[in-house]
This record gives sequence, C-alpha cells and structure tokens, in this order.
Amino acid sequence: MAEPANLTIMEVDALTDTDGGLNLTDGHARLVLSAEQAAIVARIPEMFSEASRRPFPEIESQAHHAFLTAIGQRSAPASAARILSCYSSTLATDIVARALPTGATVAVLHPTFDNIADLFVTRGLKLVPLSEEELLAQQWPGAPVSAVVVTHPNNPTGLVTPEGHLRSLAEHAARHGQTIIIDASFRGQVRDAQYDSYAVLEAAGADWITIEDTGKLWPTHELKVGLLAYSRRTVLPIERAFSESLLSASPVVLQLVTALAEDWVTGGYERARALVERNRVVIREAVEPVGLRLADPASQISVARIELPAGGPDSSLLYTDMVGRGVHVLPCTPFHWADPDGGLRFIRVSLARPLAAVDRAGQVLVQSYAELCARTATAAVA
Amino acid sequence: MAEPANLTIMEVDALTDTDGGLNLTDGHARLVLSAEQAAIVARIPEMFSEASRRPFPEIESQAHHAFLTAIGQRSAPASAARILSCYSSTLATDIVARALPTGATVAVLHPTFDNIADLFVTRGLKLVPLSEEELLAQQWPGAPVSAVVVTHPNNPTGLVTPEGHLRSLAEHAARHGQTIIIDASFRGQVRDAQYDSYAVLEAAGADWITIEDTGKLWPTHELKVGLLAYSRRTVLPIERAFSESLLSASPVVLQLVTALAEDWVTGGYERARALVERNRVVIREAVEPVGLRLADPASQISVARIELPAGGPDSSLLYTDMVGRGVHVLPCTPFHWADPDGGLRFIRVSLARPLAAVDRAGQVLVQSYAELCARTATAAVA
Repeated sequence: MAEPANLTIMEVDALTDTDGGLNLTDGHARLVLSAEQAAIVARIPEMFSEASRRPFPEIESQAHHAFLTAIGQRSAPASAARILSCYSSTLATDIVARALPTGATVAVLHPTFDNIADLFVTRGLKLVPLSEEELLAQQWPGAPVSAVVVTHPNNPTGLVTPEGHLRSLAEHAARHGQTIIIDASFRGQVRDAQYDSYAVLEAAGADWITIEDTGKLWPTHELKVGLLAYSRRTVLPIERAFSESLLSASPVVLQLVTALAEDWVTGGYERARALVERNRVVIREAVEPVGLRLADPASQISVARIELPAGGPDSSLLYTDMVGRGVHVLPCTPFHWADPDGGLRFIRVSLARPLAAVDRAGQVLVQSYAELCARTATAAVA
Repeated sequence: MAEPANLTIMEVDALTDTDGGLNLTDGHARLVLSAEQAAIVARIPEMFSEASRRPFPEIESQAHHAFLTAIGQRSAPASAARILSCYSSTLATDIVARALPTGATVAVLHPTFDNIADLFVTRGLKLVPLSEEELLAQQWPGAPVSAVVVTHPNNPTGLVTPEGHLRSLAEHAARHGQTIIIDASFRGQVRDAQYDSYAVLEAAGADWITIEDTGKLWPTHELKVGLLAYSRRTVLPIERAFSESLLSASPVVLQLVTALAEDWVTGGYERARALVERNRVVIREAVEPVGLRLADPASQISVARIELPAGGPDSSLLYTDMVGRGVHVLPCTPFHWADPDGGLRFIRVSLARPLAAVDRAGQVLVQSYAELCARTATAAVA
C-alpha cells in the first residue's frame, strides 16, 4: 500500500524486529513485575479454577468495581446503563465507531493517537479536529458535530482535561444533543485525571460513552481489558455492535484485573509512578546537553515527547536513523492526524520500560540527533 | 433495537444469566481441565517470566508451528505470506471483512454461524448464500462473486468440506480470480477436516485466506488466539487492517497455545473427543424416546443440532420455553442468515460441557418439547 505507515505498524515493526532492536514505541507497560505483582501472577492457576466455579457476571462486576474505584471513578457503575468488558480499548473504540450513525460528523482531539481517528474514518464517520488549544479555551464545536471525542489524559501530550472544562463541555453537549466520548486509556497513570468524570457527565445531563483500559497500567503481556461504559441516555446500538465483536472477556483476566487494582491502591500506583518518573528524568538529562528538551515537562503519562528545534533534523529523519541504530521510538506526524506536518518537530519515547532500555534509547537519540545535525550543517556549508 | 437478536446476544444472555441458568449456547469449551491441561495451566506464571526474557517473534512462531502441525496443517507456515495472531477468530474475520473492497460480492456458506455474515455486511459487502448442497455438488459461484467463504467444518452442521471438493473450489477460484476464505475455527476438533488444506490451496494456485482458532479446543476461559494466514498472492491490505485492530496477541497466551497443542498430539485430542462424543450420545438417548433425532448424526464438532418434526413446536418456541426453565440453547434461525425460516426446525445444543449440564439440558429439552406438543394438540382439539 502507498499509504504512510500508521503508529501501530511502526509498533509492530519494533515488536517483531528480529535483530534484537530496542522497542520504545508503544505505551504498554513493559516493566519487570514488582514483587507484589509477581505474587498476584503466581495465583493465576487458582483464578482458572475460580473461573469455573463462580458465575461470570459476579467475576466481571467485581473487576469493574475494583478497577473503576482504584482510578477514582466511584460513580461509574451506578451511572452507566452497562459496562462492557472488551479484549482491548481499541476494540471498545471500534465498537463505538460502529454504533455511531454512518456519515455523522465527530470532533476528535488533535493531536492524539492516530488509531482513534483511523477507526472512526474506516467506519464511515467524518472527522473534524478539536485542538488542545480549543479545549483549553473551552471553545466547543457546534453543528454538524454530533459527538466529541476527548482523550483524557491525552496521548502523546499528557494533557489532562480539567474538571471544570469537562463540565463546560458536558453542559454544551447536553444543550446541543451531542454525545461525549472519553478515551481514558491513560487515566490510571495520572492522579490529576482521576476526578470522578462519570459524576461530572451525569450532573450535566449529558449523553456519554467512556472507554477505560487496564492495558497501559500493568506489565501483564496483553492480558488486559478495555471497558466500554455508556450512559442511560445513549440510544446507539452499542450492545449489538459488541455482540458482533465478542462474546466476553476472559474471567481469568478479569480476576487478574481485580487483584492488580487492589494492589494499585495499596502502593502499586506509587511504585509504578516512581519508575516512570525516574525514566522521564533519564531522558530529560540525556537530551538537555545537546539542546533538546521535553515538550511536555508536566506530563505524567508513560511516554515523553521530545521537541526538535526548527532548522535541525525532523522526527521522520531521526526515527529512521534511530531504527538503523536498533532503537525504535515514534515520530509524531501520525498523531497529528489532521495535519501531519504539525508533528514533524516531536518524537515520542516510551517510559514504561526497564531503566537500561530507556538509558540506551536516550544515548542513541542524542548520538543520532548530533550526527544528523552535523550532517545538515556540513551540507549547508557545502 | 427492533432487529432480531443475533446468536451472540443469546450467548451473552446465557453467560450473564444471574438466575443461575445453564448455558449450552456457545461452542467454546467449558469443560473441566484434564490433569494434563491443569499441569500446563500451573506453569502460566513461568510463561509470564518467559515472555519478558524471549523475543516476541520467537514465542509467536513457535506457537504457530505447534498449533498448525497439531491440526495437520504442515504446509501452513511455508505457504503463507504471513500468519497474524489476533485476540479471536471473530477479530480475524472482521480484519478480513475490512480488507475486502467495499461493495464486493462474497459467497458465504449457508447455513453457518451468523456472525460471519453480520461482520461482512457491516463492512459493506454484498453476500450471496452458497448452500451445503451446492458445495457437495461442487457448483461454484461465478461473477460477480469475488470471494468464497467456507466454514470447515461447518457450524452448526459439522459438514467437512472433502479434500477433493476443496481442490475443485480452489481450481475454480484460481481460474476466476476469486479469493477463497476458509474459517477453520472448528477444525481442531475433527480429524477428517485436518487434511493439509494449505497444500491443496497452494497446489491449485489459488489466492486464499485461512482463519484458525484455538478458542474452540481448550477450556482456557477465553485465553485464546485466532490466526489469520494469507497467501503470497493476496494483495488485500490485511496488515493495515490488522494494525487498526491490535498490536499483538499475548505472548503468555501464545505459550499456553504451544503447550496445549503439544498435549493435543499426545492424547489430548482423544481425551476431548471422548467427552464430546459421550455427551452427543447423552443428548441422542435423551431425545429419541420423544421421537426426536440428531439432525447431523455424523457430526464430530462440539455442538449437536436436534431436528424438530414439522407440525410440532418450532425452535423459537422451544428456545423461549427452555430459557423459562433455566436452560439456554440456540434456535437455528439465525444460522440460516439468508433464509431464517429454514432454521425453524433445528435447535443447537453445546456438547463441550460437563456431563451433568448436558444431561440436565437433555431432560429439560424433552420435557419442554413434550409439554409444548401437548399444548399444541389441546389447542388443535379445542
């Protein structure tokens, strides 16, 4: 295909690199299990037996409750018409895209992970960008927009939609008959994003859909669930779209989620945060000596964008050169799905990795950047 | 929604029945683990560590090789351009549906599991039925059909496409530029379906896609993969469609598949077959005294259709009455996606269940059927 690669294709390339390349592309947690997490994983064989003994709905609602309360969403179960457990947040997003009326116009936060826009476009929806600046200025879209998608916190920038801003959006949406769709896949990582958004949306009388994800929090090798919760006001055929996609999530994975959520509120969150923040410092300290800086120093999610000054090598060049050196990161052009060039000055590095991997990635990035700069300078002189 | 329920919605209802109803709807294995399987499940915590230590592509190709050779598909890895590991065979089917050109006409075996037809229709494809009679008579569709989907063995009938018939279809497809799509989700259960279909398709020079599934074989509580293999001739944008859906399957699940496939060839297959065949006898012996019979006595898959004589209660009536008695099975109208009434005389019972569940389902079916017959007779007299 002549189409440019999407972010997941680059992530697959990194994951399946048979030359032993270092993978700092995806936002999944690829950390060593903590002692507490290892003790939980050791109990998986028991969870198998338990899955045969206990009714599925009981295992599922226990997982929903444990996970949602661990990330501050106390109003979720009571306010939702239903919470559906999907294999992943991507599948949950596709189910939402399928349930929306074909041809509808949807405003999607910009930049954000390209997969969200891709899934919506593939299902025949029309997209318009909602910039982070517009969100922060509370400039909400009117007709013909019938749904607004906000990634909270945003990926790759880490921007948290403040509670007051979400309230303003929810009230606007309720007035204009719009559906609010929140992709909260990274929420578990950021305390500031854990105010009870279900309560805010309900209080405004909005029609809402929220996607939660356990996949970004724990190094469980893709044993995860994406949760799709929707309000009692939602009339979209979500259950039918769900039934086209799967019968149920795994009751073993749901029990794993319950146990890891319980660990999350008794120290697990702090332990994971400390690793990510240490790695953010490692990257910052690696790049500063060559004049680079973190684009989002206040971000708390498990990825970091590095800004590349104008005039020097852009992120496509740097990405390709780094892959040649055996280190996979992500150029940011695909995140700017409505304006790819807007991402040329940013490159994204995953932080939920062992220290040695992040350290090496920082070194290679700096070497690569310095050599590309030198080459550009030589070319300019010549 | 006014649309009739699809099969998965009925399966979800059964799974989430909070009144403790018996679930004999879906074709998933819901059996107790054998001693050999339990020993493998006990090793999952080790598989977690292994997933961090070994490169993903190595774990993945080992699983592909172990699984495909365990079900007789020795030519698969060598003949495929790529084998993609998906969360499920449903997701693999949706990826194929997305990769086919919108508006294309696709012939789909009839009857078959409704989800296949639903996913294709939702992606904008036009469907025409290919009846089992046409398949057996080797009457293959011509233009405008550009792809032919065969479920092998078929669900719910258990029909195995004989090797010579597949060769004839493959040669026809190669001549007419059609793509053959085989959904082999139930193949692992049936030795007769385990001739090397990849070799047959390749020898004919056909363009092919094959979906395999570990989900129907082992009681692993939805820890499974669907494999999407496609020929070197396939020019459809399958990798892009895959990248919109997922990054990768779980390396823990892939290791579980490797181990269970190794068990499958050293007695596991025979142990599972014995349980399913015992349960088929239980159902047959339960229904014969009231004049009912198995519709597909030669079927070897883990579901059985029971034929309901004309003039008596149909499967919709029987289904509803049985749900009222706490036993969930499936009416067959949705399998007849092009002609729902064609399924009114069949009801489907899952056999991959503990003996006690199958025994009880047989009893309830017979009671329910007898009472419905009596009621019909009384009504006729009155």
